[in-house]
Amino acid sequence: MSFNTFGRVFRFTTWGESHGPALGATVDGCPPGIALDEAFIQGFMDRRRPGTSKNTTQRREADAVRILSGVYEGRTTGTPIQLMIENTDQRSKDYSKIADAFRPGHADLTYHLKYGLRDPRGGGRSSARETAARVAAAGVAFAALRDLLPGLRITGYMVQMGAMMLDRARFDRSAIEQNPFFLPDAEAAPQWEEYLTSIRKERDSVGAAIEVLIEGCPPGLGAPIYAKLDTDLAAAMMSINAVKGVEIGEGMAAAALRGTENADEMRAGEGGPEFLSNHAGGILGGISSGQDIVVRMAVKPTSSILTPRRTITRTGEETELITEGRHDPCVGIRAVPAAEAMAACVILDHLLMDRAQTGGERGRIG
Amino acid sequence: MSFNTFGRVFRFTTWGESHGPALGATVDGCPPGIALDEAFIQGFMDRRRPGTSKNTTQRREADAVRILSGVYEGRTTGTPIQLMIENTDQRSKDYSKIADAFRPGHADLTYHLKYGLRDPRGGGRSSARETAARVAAAGVAFAALRDLLPGLRITGYMVQMGAMMLDRARFDRSAIEQNPFFLPDAEAAPQWEEYLTSIRKERDSVGAAIEVLIEGCPPGLGAPIYAKLDTDLAAAMMSINAVKGVEIGEGMAAAALRGTENADEMRAGEGGPEFLSNHAGGILGGISSGQDIVVRMAVKPTSSILTPRRTITRTGEETELITEGRHDPCVGIRAVPAAEAMAACVILDHLLMDRAQTGGERGRIG
Amino acid sequence: MSFNTFGRVFRFTTWGESHGPALGATVDGCPPGIALDEAFIQGFMDRRRPGTSKNTTQRREADAVRILSGVYEGRTTGTPIQLMIENTDQRSKDYSKIADAFRPGHADLTYHLKYGLRDPRGGGRSSARETAARVAAAGVAFAALRDLLPGLRITGYMVQMGAMMLDRARFDRSAIEQNPFFLPDAEAAPQWEEYLTSIRKERDSVGAAIEVLIEGCPPGLGAPIYAKLDTDLAAAMMSINAVKGVEIGEGMAAAALRGTENADEMRAGEGGPEFLSNHAGGILGGISSGQDIVVRMAVKPTSSILTPRRTITRTGEETELITEGRHDPCVGIRAVPAAEAMAACVILDHLLMDRAQTGGERGRIG
Amino acid sequence: MSFNTFGRVFRFTTWGESHGPALGATVDGCPPGIALDEAFIQGFMDRRRPGTSKNTTQRREADAVRILSGVYEGRTTGTPIQLMIENTDQRSKDYSKIADAFRPGHADLTYHLKYGLRDPRGGGRSSARETAARVAAAGVAFAALRDLLPGLRITGYMVQMGAMMLDRARFDRSAIEQNPFFLPDAEAAPQWEEYLTSIRKERDSVGAAIEVLIEGCPPGLGAPIYAKLDTDLAAAMMSINAVKGVEIGEGMAAAALRGTENADEMRAGEGGPEFLSNHAGGILGGISSGQDIVVRMAVKPTSSILTPRRTITRTGEETELITEGRHDPCVGIRAVPAAEAMAACVILDHLLMDRAQTGGERGRIG
Repeated sequence: MSFNTFGRVFRFTTWGESHGPALGATVDGCPPGIALDEAFIQGFMDRRRPGTSKNTTQRREADAVRILSGVYEGRTTGTPIQLMIENTDQRSKDYSKIADAFRPGHADLTYHLKYGLRDPRGGGRSSARETAARVAAAGVAFAALRDLLPGLRITGYMVQMGAMMLDRARFDRSAIEQNPFFLPDAEAAPQWEEYLTSIRKERDSVGAAIEVLIEGCPPGLGAPIYAKLDTDLAAAMMSINAVKGVEIGEGMAAAALRGTENADEMRAGEGGPEFLSNHAGGILGGISSGQDIVVRMAVKPTSSILTPRRTITRTGEETELITEGRHDPCVGIRAVPAAEAMAACVILDHLLMDRAQTGGERGRIG
Repeated sequence: MSFNTFGRVFRFTTWGESHGPALGATVDGCPPGIALDEAFIQGFMDRRRPGTSKNTTQRREADAVRILSGVYEGRTTGTPIQLMIENTDQRSKDYSKIADAFRPGHADLTYHLKYGLRDPRGGGRSSARETAARVAAAGVAFAALRDLLPGLRITGYMVQMGAMMLDRARFDRSAIEQNPFFLPDAEAAPQWEEYLTSIRKERDSVGAAIEVLIEGCPPGLGAPIYAKLDTDLAAAMMSINAVKGVEIGEGMAAAALRGTENADEMRAGEGGPEFLSNHAGGILGGISSGQDIVVRMAVKPTSSILTPRRTITRTGEETELITEGRHDPCVGIRAVPAAEAMAACVILDHLLMDRAQTGGERGRIG
Repeated sequence: MSFNTFGRVFRFTTWGESHGPALGATVDGCPPGIALDEAFIQGFMDRRRPGTSKNTTQRREADAVRILSGVYEGRTTGTPIQLMIENTDQRSKDYSKIADAFRPGHADLTYHLKYGLRDPRGGGRSSARETAARVAAAGVAFAALRDLLPGLRITGYMVQMGAMMLDRARFDRSAIEQNPFFLPDAEAAPQWEEYLTSIRKERDSVGAAIEVLIEGCPPGLGAPIYAKLDTDLAAAMMSINAVKGVEIGEGMAAAALRGTENADEMRAGEGGPEFLSNHAGGILGGISSGQDIVVRMAVKPTSSILTPRRTITRTGEETELITEGRHDPCVGIRAVPAAEAMAACVILDHLLMDRAQTGGERGRIG
Repeated sequence: MSFNTFGRVFRFTTWGESHGPALGATVDGCPPGIALDEAFIQGFMDRRRPGTSKNTTQRREADAVRILSGVYEGRTTGTPIQLMIENTDQRSKDYSKIADAFRPGHADLTYHLKYGLRDPRGGGRSSARETAARVAAAGVAFAALRDLLPGLRITGYMVQMGAMMLDRARFDRSAIEQNPFFLPDAEAAPQWEEYLTSIRKERDSVGAAIEVLIEGCPPGLGAPIYAKLDTDLAAAMMSINAVKGVEIGEGMAAAALRGTENADEMRAGEGGPEFLSNHAGGILGGISSGQDIVVRMAVKPTSSILTPRRTITRTGEETELITEGRHDPCVGIRAVPAAEAMAACVILDHLLMDRAQTGGERGRIG
């Protein structure tokens, strides 16, 4: 069972509530001898941290990660790595009003029904703040991948935000880190900003779609039938707060395609196949093919908005609720680093799992 | 690790190749005392069986399930249930040509690269024939759910096949079993048939989208954060051959929505909330809310087509390949029972997991 | 959860009842490319098969193993290997009398209490016949180890049977396969035979102690803290029917030792340490040290005896019971191949687990 | 895989090194609504804490447990419970000499070989200090068991320390907490003290045997074949530092018994069987019978002694080593609370696992 644990070999268990004293991740199964320090992990934390622009929540968390175990003299020892992030800016009072009413679109109702009680401060365990812990855990994964798969590159970016769509003809990787939307189109960014500002002013929020591109993944990762690489990527992405759909390659559009359009033909390349297209998104039969892996996901709009919504209370009374506080008008933005994080963890886990069974040897062509 | 095993409490391991002597499922963790016999499971097998129309492969398998263990005097004993299906119509010779070339869109290449060797007969382990084993396993799940959740109803149907789309205004549940497409629209079925016939005559195939509706699921199922109900449904569906995308509720369309549109408001109903909409698809924070659960998936078009495709061989030579043999022009059709099967297994597994942790007690409202 | 599944990477799920149509093991996670056929596995089956002497049950099972999946052209493919053994000599009528009464020392009572029903034919799932399935699964492990650890040697033998003790000064490995007791002392074997015959004639049975010696195991296997090699060996041995105690190295005798006696001192050997003793039994901190691994276990006397025992029935009535049928006067004999089997599976599983995390690289000395 | 994780439903992952900033346990799967606070857990910590007598190490750790998550207003919420214990008295300098040499009997060598590097400060991860984390985790288990199994009582005590044996005729439960040996014999305690003092003065250490008695455990716990209750108890106990043997009921002595002596006969009791003996130690076929469960284990003598031992260094040089510092002359003493802790965790885990599969219903007698 893995209530709060991700992974099979490279595993982490996240813990902590939005407004408790701290939250973190217990990382197990990391290869030994990997160079790792807090600064390296902090770089990933800083990308997802709120408070960096008016488009993400104004809550200001230092989100400083401490490594409490598993690293000695700058290298992983192969024992569990405890990563702790103290909550320094909880402002619990913001949330006191909503302890009794169930915020629509949130997990308040379902946690109450399942567990009989819930920590209402900031959504408790169901808060998107949990993604800080997995981004920290993924810092360890990125450190290991840097050693084990130096050619790997994982890049997340927004492809849609409400009515705004990425124009793929204008895709520019270098733009991604230059705007607050992880948008690979520098020119479009101001429009997106204007659009999101108008939504925020309307006391509303908006959904988003994110794509993660995994380049340099070797073939052979994925363990059919029930630990397929795409299965695990789908689960990993769906586990991120607010994600409602996951696609690999053509994704839902595959339903409209014909066989003559869809299957990626091959020609002889150097030391293996050269594919003429990539409808599959880099995975065949649950195993990576060596092509780029393409994962996409949709994130629903923030449910916490300043527009009153109808709901009920714990005692069954009808009420209306405005979710005050500091909330992202588009949680999809902060989901980008979370999605990259999960991609890194899935790839590392499968890399280790594959070498368990096969020793990492690959079948030859030619 | 769970290479070929699904589930946490209700678990099954499928085994067998498309053209080996047999295939099956080893089911573990089933509650004891459940009425079960081969005829009950066979009913589910017959729905997915090929050879029932010209729109599914003409390969004729009796697909007769034998229960080899775990059932005594018509009741499950709580010990592993072995379900075996003998392969009676393998015709291995159909596949002899393709032992050397990698069929585009298939797992031939990736199995070769990962394992260094592969069973080429009918795709071996990567064949959609594996879904027979999981449908059998799900027969056990359905038997247990009949006892434990008598109000549960799981209904799969096609919502798209290539250019054909279900007109949801004409949704008619009673039509689903009356046409070869699991289409909930009796009038449209002849058109779909005509369409698929034309595709087959063009030596082509086509993708599909399937929806599974889970009614009567109690609230409280799902174990956040890494065993969320939607996470597990996404993984389960993505593990089915040829599935490229999975959606819960609004799915990918959530990216275009606003917060005021998306969050499902509540009014006081009898003994709990009454929702005014179901954009969430019945799951909030990874836990079922008591609303209908709505899962959708896209299935890519059959890669085995009679139109020549360019590919390479094991020795790295370029070649063209026509995949002869008996293939479904739309594998999405047979994916409907497989998707229902996975839904049943996920719900049962989570029901048992929930009673492990909470004893099945629910928080009260009012 | 792993009700009926052993292992983490190299995994098998056993299934089947003593008197059902068949029993077997579903083996998953085996490395690909391993030479394997039914004859190789059969060799291990034949060692544990009853009916080879009057000291083991006279039930005659061919115990012929069939490989139903996962092997193609004599090599493992990396997919699940289904091993099936048909039950050909069930004689259910022998057991009809005991369906209502709970045999003392057996699992009849506890299965009834836990599951509410039980398959009484030959003890159903709780019969020692289950060990046939794990010996078959271990045949796969032995095949993989032959390739991956060619220097490994696993040898089980009896060290005690009731009042008879192995004289370790007379230990002779070559004798083990030459007598029906797996006794490494050819001269003592006739005495043991006489002793066991007298016990059988007294309508009684007797316990035994078994030792398994694992030579050639590389250092570094074992994953502290909760997947230590000794932890997993202890669990594996305790899972064998009738085992009541497990020891590593000094075992229970360690309680009487002093620190100056117990810790194994080291001198410089070729390329590593040379130990001056082996009280630890080859495992330090849960990790193999490269020394011989020594595991010992006690097997209780067969509970099925021809002497009447007092018990109760399902309706709570008091009764006396003689367990007729064909039973081993010392089940410990047949536990020897089962213990070797479990040792092989643990070592292979840990070998694969270790290469998952560390890549199989070892720290250097010197 | 579960490198550092115990359990299936009630799970905990321990983390931390002997001389790092902190250590702890991440507890998952705890039922919600359980009353829990730091003081309750602290009670268990205090029992195992070193520094309470001259017979345990003079290192003085406050061992104050902090609950960082998973508890809200004094009740568990069903989410992960992070328990952290700061290391306040590390004195790393004590250990600086031994960074290069491998202490005989310790895990220094095997950690070095497996991981290529190790944290030498106080044994790092392999230190018995890890048991503090599991005792903390077990505090949560005890809190849950207090609610779920109010009649359960788990009692650990020493039965042997080197040459000193408990006289079972003098067993007095009330004495256990009244002496520093957890010895159920008040009169013998001074003798044990004298004996241990003499051993310490001889710069030596001594082994011990511990028994854990589990009273009030309901029948039906344990999931054959590979999650038997005795299997899991054996693994749990063997995972404790320095344990070399585990016994259930008669344990190793079963090898000497006859069937007429061993199987526990039954008479009709109130609402079930009344057993006439308890050779089985409360477990039949891997399932609890309702009788007292009896587990015993041997703990080897402390390897850290003030007598010089021969060993080698990382560079392969021969050397002699005295392990200075503050060490228990008998680690078995502190293993008593650790053994009780593991027993509690196993029972709770199996209780939850059982209700997952069976709903907790029991078969009836009469």
